[in-house]
Amino acid sequence: MDRPANLASITLTQQESRIMAQVQRMSRLMVKTLRDDPADAETLSHKLLVRAGYVRRNSAGIWTWLPLGKKVLDNISRVVREEMDAIGAQEVLLPALLPKEPYEASARWEEYGDLLFRLKDRKGGEYLLGPTHEEIFTLVVKDQVASYKDLPVMLYQIQTKYRDEARPRSGVLRGREFQMKDSYSFDTTDEGLAESYRLHREAYQKIFARLGLDYRIVSAVSGAMGGSASEEFLAPAAAGEDTFVDCPACDYAANTEAVTFKLTPVEAEHGPVEELDTPDTPTIETLAEHLGVPASATLKNLLVKVDGEIVAVGVPGDREVDLGKLGEHLAPAVVELVTAEDFEGRGDLVRGYVGPQGLEKVRYIADPRVAPGTSWITGANKINTHAKNVVAGRDFEVDDYLDVVVVEEGDPCPQCGTGLKLDRAIEIGHIFQLGRKYADTFQLDVLGQQGKPVRVTMGSYGIGVSRAVAALAEQSADEQGLCWPKEIAPADVHVVAAGKALQTELALDVSQKLGAAGVRVLVDDRAGVSPGVKFTDAELIGVPKILVAGRRSAEGVLELKDRRTGEREELTVDEAIARLTA
Amino acid sequence: MDRPANLASITLTQQESRIMAQVQRMSRLMVKTLRDDPADAETLSHKLLVRAGYVRRNSAGIWTWLPLGKKVLDNISRVVREEMDAIGAQEVLLPALLPKEPYEASARWEEYGDLLFRLKDRKGGEYLLGPTHEEIFTLVVKDQVASYKDLPVMLYQIQTKYRDEARPRSGVLRGREFQMKDSYSFDTTDEGLAESYRLHREAYQKIFARLGLDYRIVSAVSGAMGGSASEEFLAPAAAGEDTFVDCPACDYAANTEAVTFKLTPVEAEHGPVEELDTPDTPTIETLAEHLGVPASATLKNLLVKVDGEIVAVGVPGDREVDLGKLGEHLAPAVVELVTAEDFEGRGDLVRGYVGPQGLEKVRYIADPRVAPGTSWITGANKINTHAKNVVAGRDFEVDDYLDVVVVEEGDPCPQCGTGLKLDRAIEIGHIFQLGRKYADTFQLDVLGQQGKPVRVTMGSYGIGVSRAVAALAEQSADEQGLCWPKEIAPADVHVVAAGKALQTELALDVSQKLGAAGVRVLVDDRAGVSPGVKFTDAELIGVPKILVAGRRSAEGVLELKDRRTGEREELTVDEAIARLTA
Repeated sequence: MDRPANLASITLTQQESRIMAQVQRMSRLMVKTLRDDPADAETLSHKLLVRAGYVRRNSAGIWTWLPLGKKVLDNISRVVREEMDAIGAQEVLLPALLPKEPYEASARWEEYGDLLFRLKDRKGGEYLLGPTHEEIFTLVVKDQVASYKDLPVMLYQIQTKYRDEARPRSGVLRGREFQMKDSYSFDTTDEGLAESYRLHREAYQKIFARLGLDYRIVSAVSGAMGGSASEEFLAPAAAGEDTFVDCPACDYAANTEAVTFKLTPVEAEHGPVEELDTPDTPTIETLAEHLGVPASATLKNLLVKVDGEIVAVGVPGDREVDLGKLGEHLAPAVVELVTAEDFEGRGDLVRGYVGPQGLEKVRYIADPRVAPGTSWITGANKINTHAKNVVAGRDFEVDDYLDVVVVEEGDPCPQCGTGLKLDRAIEIGHIFQLGRKYADTFQLDVLGQQGKPVRVTMGSYGIGVSRAVAALAEQSADEQGLCWPKEIAPADVHVVAAGKALQTELALDVSQKLGAAGVRVLVDDRAGVSPGVKFTDAELIGVPKILVAGRRSAEGVLELKDRRTGEREELTVDEAIARLTA
Repeated sequence: MDRPANLASITLTQQESRIMAQVQRMSRLMVKTLRDDPADAETLSHKLLVRAGYVRRNSAGIWTWLPLGKKVLDNISRVVREEMDAIGAQEVLLPALLPKEPYEASARWEEYGDLLFRLKDRKGGEYLLGPTHEEIFTLVVKDQVASYKDLPVMLYQIQTKYRDEARPRSGVLRGREFQMKDSYSFDTTDEGLAESYRLHREAYQKIFARLGLDYRIVSAVSGAMGGSASEEFLAPAAAGEDTFVDCPACDYAANTEAVTFKLTPVEAEHGPVEELDTPDTPTIETLAEHLGVPASATLKNLLVKVDGEIVAVGVPGDREVDLGKLGEHLAPAVVELVTAEDFEGRGDLVRGYVGPQGLEKVRYIADPRVAPGTSWITGANKINTHAKNVVAGRDFEVDDYLDVVVVEEGDPCPQCGTGLKLDRAIEIGHIFQLGRKYADTFQLDVLGQQGKPVRVTMGSYGIGVSRAVAALAEQSADEQGLCWPKEIAPADVHVVAAGKALQTELALDVSQKLGAAGVRVLVDDRAGVSPGVKFTDAELIGVPKILVAGRRSAEGVLELKDRRTGEREELTVDEAIARLTA
């Protein structure tokens, strides 16, 4: 039969098998490159990972990892595993199909809403596909650990997670099924938790450095996770779905939701409140235009419902209220926008003309920019009428100052006051000090040193492994294609047979020798494919070194090219092997 | 703070980190051994894997792999991966959450029935959790492969599978979420498929040999997979859910469902049919007792419905009909048992007294034991009446001879006629020549050598990775506990500090040295645990070598024990290192 000789027969020696695993031949490897971007791709990594044959879409937000993609995924997992092992974390593997009950106990069965994939088994038992595993790890440790002597413990897994994203997009950057490293720490004291957190933070720094990722560590709000301290690892990239602020002058960096503004009372003389006739000016734009003042001179009062009760939120007229931030501040209370019906029977609320000076029965929340002593033009609580010289602390009281405005480029750095920069980034890691939230829910206690039960305190730490592939692709790609850091690349060298039999023979010979020396080789030995197409594919696939058997093959001379810099040099086979094994 | 010193701090050198990953300290490892068997455990592997702290049940048939269990799982995966790579198979990773459509096209969305976990996403799209991936691999190859030159291709993944078993039991032996290696071959010719099949068969032989599993390769029926040739790899074990037959005289072995009986017509003189008055004998037992004959002299006629039509199945009265086998033979027709209603209006069918000689309008299927020329006592198609001297081929015709009886110990070997042995086993691997079934469904063609489309032919090959853990545990355990083969064990040596500070110091010292020499060490350095408990735990955990720092620790002398044979010898530290690194 006509089976190609390069598919191993059973007579291979151990040595031959070992080399074979090191040398991947393009003539046999399932990697189909595409010249055109996929129609649905918006981001660079999505386009390139599909075009270079690393991944293929299976269904919305659900991906197949082809041979080259699987190697990159494995290389990232290996780095993560080594650094997690190095801090003494223990690897386990928990299921993805999880029973409803623990997530009901933590209230996340409800809180996650549509983000959770839910299903029933043949007996009607309710299950979910795990989006993250705090509940289950808490229960595992409750079963396994009895005494303070058994703690601290840090556990991790590299496992498949599920989130039913409303708009899965950007390729593997935000999938509905994805690979994640999640770990959890268990301590008896707050100091212990701080130390577990520190160990993870430093392990993450090492991991991202080894992956060759440019990243920033930013303060974050904890969100649905609960708990206190929390930081995000962000990889700046145009395709990123997160926005963060960065101070050009000091080391401050933060998730936009975590940025604070310093409350600074103002000492100043202001005239008395005066009413202004402002017909038909229910919006800030119409008002500012009518009066000929900047929007920043006006006070915008947004009405919302907090657990059903109407609350007013005051911010300068040129700023937007960040409802996500407001929700975080007021959680677990639920924040909703008001509707026309909410005004019925409320003569004190004049739509479009609300001012805090007339709101006696309404809780008033304001941004710190509305500091005591500042003066505003705002609604007079009468139709077609506003008021000026309305002074915070004199004419109205603020019940709570909360940071609720959408952060903008140029806002002052909370540390040094310099104007902040706004950047887009990919969240590649997130570390949380959860505290006792889950331990309280599941009554996770251990016997303490004094013989009494001690409640355990927890941390939770995640790295998006499949997302890191996309982040790396985003950051390292250039116009020619992907360009992987050495430790992550699917091979160390891409050998190109640029010619006919002579070149192919030399390419295969040097590949065998490199493989035997422990170098991971991808060799383009395809027949009937032009050197030009092979070069284009090599640039697209992005292995860091490209070794070409071309014009001087008869002399045994090859050309070694650096994928990133484009630097080239001519080398003999022995020199090439020496260079690549150095 | 009071953090134990053995949890790595960030100041560890690379070298120290490497050793740390080689040396696992029981004082910090999350492994809680149990003295008693779990209440719900029926099989040896279930009991021991739970008691030794390798796995814990999460929900019915869904398991958590604790640190020791994860290591064993990884070791098996590594062996599988190496041997799959060695035959040129390419590793990929497909999703577990799969869209309904391809499984509808193959009809398995229906055929799998309750075995399939089904769910909907937030938009109402229907999905399943993959029980096996033939459909999706066919589509991946259809997308990636265009020409005969791109084939053959063999692809594999080690991935999580889901089957909603009616009665998940036996621990990780039959789970609802489990790890499997599945691979798929794609060829243009039948000879190519035969070669891909042979390569897999030989790789499986190497894998199971390296895992240290005792196994048999048996002929199998293909079942719901479809296709032609198929063999199972069975690991004999009392806990096995499969029964297979084994010939003590020749090399024949088969799944009981695949055993055949040779049809041998009998030349003999028989008297004419005679009716017998047999009041109240509607069963074989009552009939045989009434007449004083062995059950084997009677003919049992089972009525079933095949796609709604009544069919009679004749087997010797002492044998049982294997409905599973019958279903396999008649697939895709559906076989059901008859109910009382089916007899309405059928005067020709006298319940309890059916005989084939009177069934003119009913299709008659018989076991080859009811060969032409054999004579039987059977129903006379009249109430309370039987007939004797009813001869196959003379008094009734058999429409189809099919092997449908339940195989029994002592049945003749189809190859050599020797009485067969029946044994229980665990199915650890299964290889199929699928042929063109899925390629037909999804129109998987490639451009052939003659420039015309050629339909692809496929193979499908599976190894139960998590099940192999249980099979290994079943086969290698003894009364003291688990007893792993070296390549699979969670460590190479289990060092026991059997005493106080002196012993612990020696144990940790030799562990560090062994770790530095590349030996994987589990060291029991727990304080406040007696040597007796440590010895019991070491036997239970089942690392192949146990090195004890005990009475002669002051002299630097340790005792090395072989876990399986119990052989012991005293060695110095250097001798122990030399022995364990040999």
